[in-house]
Parts: sequence; structure tokens; C-alpha cells
Amino acid sequence: MIIISIGNELLYGKTVNTNASFIAEQLFNIGIEVEEVITIGDNKEDIEKALNQAFETSNWVITTGGLGPTKDDITKKVIADYFDCSLVMDQPTLERITEMYRRRGTQITEVNRRQAEIPEKGIALRNDHGTAPGIWIEEGEKVAVILPGVPFEMKAIMIEEVIPLIEKKRNKNQVVIHKEIVTAGIGESALSDLIESWELALPGHITLAYLPTPGKLMLRLTGRGNKAEKELLDQELEQQLDLLIQLVPQYIISTKNESIVEVISKKIIKKGQKLAVAESCTGGFLAHQITLLPGASRFFEGGIVSYSNTIKREILNVREINLKKHGAVSEFVVIDMAMNTMNLFDVDYAIAISGIVGPTGGTPEKPVGTAWIAVASPTKTVTQQVNYGTQGGREVIIQRIAGAALYLLYQQLQ
Amino acid sequence: MIIISIGNELLYGKTVNTNASFIAEQLFNIGIEVEEVITIGDNKEDIEKALNQAFETSNWVITTGGLGPTKDDITKKVIADYFDCSLVMDQPTLERITEMYRRRGTQITEVNRRQAEIPEKGIALRNDHGTAPGIWIEEGEKVAVILPGVPFEMKAIMIEEVIPLIEKKRNKNQVVIHKEIVTAGIGESALSDLIESWELALPGHITLAYLPTPGKLMLRLTGRGNKAEKELLDQELEQQLDLLIQLVPQYIISTKNESIVEVISKKIIKKGQKLAVAESCTGGFLAHQITLLPGASRFFEGGIVSYSNTIKREILNVREINLKKHGAVSEFVVIDMAMNTMNLFDVDYAIAISGIVGPTGGTPEKPVGTAWIAVASPTKTVTQQVNYGTQGGREVIIQRIAGAALYLLYQQLQ
Repeated sequence: MIIISIGNELLYGKTVNTNASFIAEQLFNIGIEVEEVITIGDNKEDIEKALNQAFETSNWVITTGGLGPTKDDITKKVIADYFDCSLVMDQPTLERITEMYRRRGTQITEVNRRQAEIPEKGIALRNDHGTAPGIWIEEGEKVAVILPGVPFEMKAIMIEEVIPLIEKKRNKNQVVIHKEIVTAGIGESALSDLIESWELALPGHITLAYLPTPGKLMLRLTGRGNKAEKELLDQELEQQLDLLIQLVPQYIISTKNESIVEVISKKIIKKGQKLAVAESCTGGFLAHQITLLPGASRFFEGGIVSYSNTIKREILNVREINLKKHGAVSEFVVIDMAMNTMNLFDVDYAIAISGIVGPTGGTPEKPVGTAWIAVASPTKTVTQQVNYGTQGGREVIIQRIAGAALYLLYQQLQ
Repeated sequence: MIIISIGNELLYGKTVNTNASFIAEQLFNIGIEVEEVITIGDNKEDIEKALNQAFETSNWVITTGGLGPTKDDITKKVIADYFDCSLVMDQPTLERITEMYRRRGTQITEVNRRQAEIPEKGIALRNDHGTAPGIWIEEGEKVAVILPGVPFEMKAIMIEEVIPLIEKKRNKNQVVIHKEIVTAGIGESALSDLIESWELALPGHITLAYLPTPGKLMLRLTGRGNKAEKELLDQELEQQLDLLIQLVPQYIISTKNESIVEVISKKIIKKGQKLAVAESCTGGFLAHQITLLPGASRFFEGGIVSYSNTIKREILNVREINLKKHGAVSEFVVIDMAMNTMNLFDVDYAIAISGIVGPTGGTPEKPVGTAWIAVASPTKTVTQQVNYGTQGGREVIIQRIAGAALYLLYQQLQ
């Protein structure tokens, strides 16, 4: 499968090509490999050239972008030319667009009408979130899927229309099985070192992928085989997964595709308990990570961003002597912060963080990247010092410290 | 210029190709156009093919990825073959790597030594953040720049070594001038509608680019011309910029490349004043946006994430009658939140936000995407209701509401 991403904005550098990674992930999930992503501008010659190159390598091509109503958007015409047919009006699409404009209280214009045209050899893929339909066009062995570039339009069409159509057309005899585990508390390369010999010993039809996303490092085992051997393959994957889990049990937080916040939330909700946080250097990022989870209000009461020492003293009751004697980045201060957050918010668990995320503010004893974390729980308060150095800059250091804090809480919930 | 991004992880979909957009942006800044980005796996044949295709189109190619010490990393060898030379040890690089390992207290291994090999026709580009050097190799008109795939290593080499080398080699007679403005308080398409006739009337040698990043929508005018006409071109761009500013003055917050948080911070610091925030639905994201700015402690005291009504009542003193009569998402509640945050944190400005970010929790009167914002200032408290609908999901809605809150504060600071 080749993905062709079309759009001048992708070549200016400010727009990151997240469409290609979304599509690649969806295809990966059903066991289809992307061989190449070609990113080009809204330019007839470049689109033609990319199409020719792509179909030389693969029978399957997905394009995104260039389906808008302006004269820059020429993908549809180039595709029609490639498949040697003309553009024709697709009546169901025209009705859908007309209805869309009617609901908005406006009339459809000639330019919008043309959005409903598709190559004669193609079929329209319903777009519930915008005007331009997706298009599925095939001839002989070749299949081209044409999608709009607006991410939420593209995503919906991909999930609701394209994936089911691809599954229908696939080789019925092949089977692909995925097993996933989510890790936390360890970086990708350190984990890779620990499991290296296991990974090298995997048989050829089983592959391992590291899938890091913010707040989550997922490992995915993929096994490929004949449909007849599906059960055997499944057992084999389970056995490999067990071996992996035995190697690094402390870092494996889930065998589902869930983040550490989800894992923590389930444990706390199950106990009918509540969480609050107090953040200095992470400045609200930890609370944000937690509240990104839909339904976070079931276990999360809130938090304090105590960015100044005044607030640490006056709202979080951090003792002056601890600030003076040990400094804001110290075990004593985060313990005060955690204990008082627990009282103030009347919760069962409180996380407190204080550190130096740079670029300035480091000292020889407490260089940039240093943080103290405390987790108060019903039975005890634990602390940890971390140091992530300066690599990656302020934002990455904040993410790593927040990740360490969540892992420390996770350990207390075991 | 063609960018070739190499790495299996880019084709699995979980790793987004941010390297390509970073490089494209750096090149755009010095007036160099990227014609295509080719993304492929760590595979000898694919790299060879991509190189051949790229050099058919352009004399300039930048690759990232595949420079690591493992057997998967084969970019360097393929490049050496393409330029018909062998790999040789680069002594300065070897010394740098040896010293790096010495500092870590370990000895350099044979595998690491090989990291210091580069194609004989190339020169090594210093990598201060990792072992693999960048490589600059040219022959005749062709130039290939080979960079590691680790983002912070690649970025440093790009900025410190590659851009200066490119600038040195360029046509000395051409000049490219950029002028930037940053907008806020309006979406890209609405802004585009307002300035359409001005944009269409731009002369051919001046182009406009929309460069949206989280928290910042930048517009960039780029003018191209002969070096002899540099002053004239500069004046022309200034005039066009003035016309643009006159069209939408209220949405233009800066003529520098700075975010709304930076603009706000300068105004508040200049007055010697302080800010705090109270967040319900944005759950810490607003505080996080503010504290991402280095030196935020000069004007930001902190905030409260009052995710539950209990915390709104007990820590932020939101009046029970307001919660009961008007609900947590109401003008009355955000006014209480803002006023009491101002008192509690003893600051001059307080932002308060309460809303519904979904996917559940919406009602016919207050659908998902609805939020109330209040900004308390020394002279008055202003409020605004926004509704961003459901498009983009929870994370995007949170970003938009926080953006609206910052814009409301910006207006109070005028």
C-alpha cells in the first residue's frame, strides 16, 4: 500500500502530516503494510508522477487532500485522467450536499455542486462531516482510494467506509493477529536492551513493534499465518507474550491498549476513591493528562498549580522552614505539598511535583531536569527523585516528569 | 529540495513524521521550497529507489534516519554506493564518540566505532547530542545531506551545520524576505474569508502562507527578488503588511514570531503584575500552556484545577446558589471562580473557565463544546460564552477554549 499525501501546506513545514500516520496505523491494525508515503504539493504534474510511481510498486494507493472546491484542488481530475474516464455527477452525493447547505440556510453554489462530481469508474464514499466525498476506484488489480485532507473528515471515511471495503476484498486465507502490552516507568531504549535476546529469538512470522505515543509506550506483537492455523498462531503469540511479561513484569501495566491514566483511573474508581494533584514545574500538564481521559471527574477532584513559592506557602501550607532549608525542589517540600493537597481536596491519593525544567534555573546540586515527586496514599507517602537531563527541552522534560509521577502512583495502587 | 524520511516506525503509523515538517520549515525560512517528501522503511532497495527518484527531480536531497548502530540502519552504506565510494573512518568523529563514552564511564565498542565511518566523498557534520554524525556529500551539482532520525539530534545539526552550509552555496544574487504576523481570536478559514480580496491582489513575487501551530496562527508574507532590489522589495512587503493589518486589526496580536502567551506575558510583566487561573473543563491545559513559556514564573503565580463542584465550592468559594440555579457551566459560576482566584492568589488578573468538552455531558441548552470564560482584571471582570461544537474531539475542544480565554485576557490588556 502506498499513501500519497497531497497539499502545499505539508511542504511548508508548519503542517505535520498526521493524516499519513493515521492511515498507516489503521492499515497496520488490519495487517496491511504501508511501503511508502509520498508527500507532494497541489500540482497536476507531481500528482500524476506520484500516481505512476506508486502503481509501479503497489496495486493499492490511498491519497488524501486536494478535494476542496477551489482551483488548487485537482486530485479528482488527475485521478479521472489516470483511470481514463471523465467526471460525472454523483446524485446521492449531490443530494447530501444540497441538504447540508439547506440545513445551514444557504443555497448550494455551482462550485459546491462540482464537489459532487466523481470519476465515472469510481464509487462515492459517504462523508458525513464535509462536502467532498471520498472515492473508491478500481480497475483490474489496481485500487485507488481518494480521501479529503481535512483530518476529521478523512478519519471518519477511513474507519466507516474504507477499512470495511478493504477487508472485504482481501485474501480470505490470510490471518493476522495482534497482541499488545502497554509499558510505563521505563524508556524505549532501556526496555529494548532488557528484552533484546527474547526479541531476537522471535520466529520470522512474528514481529515486534514499539509504538510510543505521549504518555504510553505500547509494544505490539504481530503474527501472520494461514487461516487454518489461526488457533495455533494465537497460542504461539500468547506464549511469546508470557515470556515477555516474565522478563519485565514491573514495567507492564496493561495488556490492553490503554494509557497509564486509564489503568490508574480504573483502580481508583474500583475502590471508590479520589485523586488530586499539586504541580510546580509541570505547571498543569499532569492535571491536563488526567483530564484528557473522558469521565475523569469520576475519580479526579482537581489540583493546584503552585508555580510560585508564595502559593506553595499560602495555599498548600508548605512550611517556610522546608522552603528555606531545603529549597522548593526537595523531598521535604513535595511531602508537604502532597499531604496538604490530600487534606485540602479531601482525597485518598495526592501527587505532588516540584522540579527544574529549564532552560535556566539549574544548579550544580540540582541541574535542569531534576524533580522531586511525592505520592500520598491512605497508607503511606512515598517519594522519588528523578533527573531527565536537558535533552528534548522544556516540554519533553515536563512530559517525562509527569510520566514518572503517574508511574509512582501506579506502583502505590498495586 | 526533496526530503527522504527513512524508518520502519514511520510506516506503522504510531510515529508521526515531524522531522520532515521541521526540515521543511527551516528550509522555507530561508526561501527554499520542498517539492516532495518520500517516506520509506529501513530497506536497501527502497532507499536506493528513493534516492534515484529524488535526484531525477532535484539536485538537493536531505535524508533522515537509518544512521543508528544496528544492522537495520543502512542509509550510510546506500549513500556511499550511490556516490560510488566506500566508507572510511572519520577521525574527528571517532575522537568525539570515544570521548562521549569515556565521559559516561564506558569503553567504545566495535559497533560504536563504526558510527564514525562516513562515505569517503563526504564531510562529517558535528552531532553534539548523539553518536551518529550528519554527513554532507556533494558531487557535481548533486548534494545529499544525511541526518540521524532522532529529532533533537537532527534538529541541532540542521540548525547549526546544514542551514549555514546551504546559505553559503546559494545563488548570491537572489534575495528572499519574510514578514510575519501572528493572529489570535479567529480561525484560519474565517480569517481567510476576511482577507481574501487582499490576498488575491498580491503580486506574483509575493506569497502568503498560513502557518498554524497549537496556540498560534501565523501568517507569513514571502517576497522574492534580485539582491539589487532588496530595499524596494522590503518596502513593498511592509506596505502589503500594513494593508493586511488595516483589514483585521483586532485579530493581529504581534508582528513577531511569538505566541499569545508571550504577548500577554510581556504586557503583564511590564506592568509588574501577576496572573492566576481557575480551570474546570480545560483541566490544567491553560496553566500548562502558560508554563510552557520559559520564565513564566515572572508573571504567573499558578492556578486551581477545580474539576469537581466540591472543589469549586470549597476552594474557590463558588456560591452554592449559583451552582444550583445556573449550573457549573454558567456566567455566574465563572465570575465567582475568577473573583475568588484573584483574591486567593493575590493577583491582578485571573482567568476562569467552565465548560463541557465531551464526549458526554452535553444538554440541549449547553451542548458539548460550550464554555463560559471570565477574566477578572484590576478595573473590571468580563465574560464570554463560546461554543466550539464537537469537531476534533475532547483534546481539540480544550485547546480552542483555552485559546479563546487567552484572547479574552489579551483584549483586557490592550
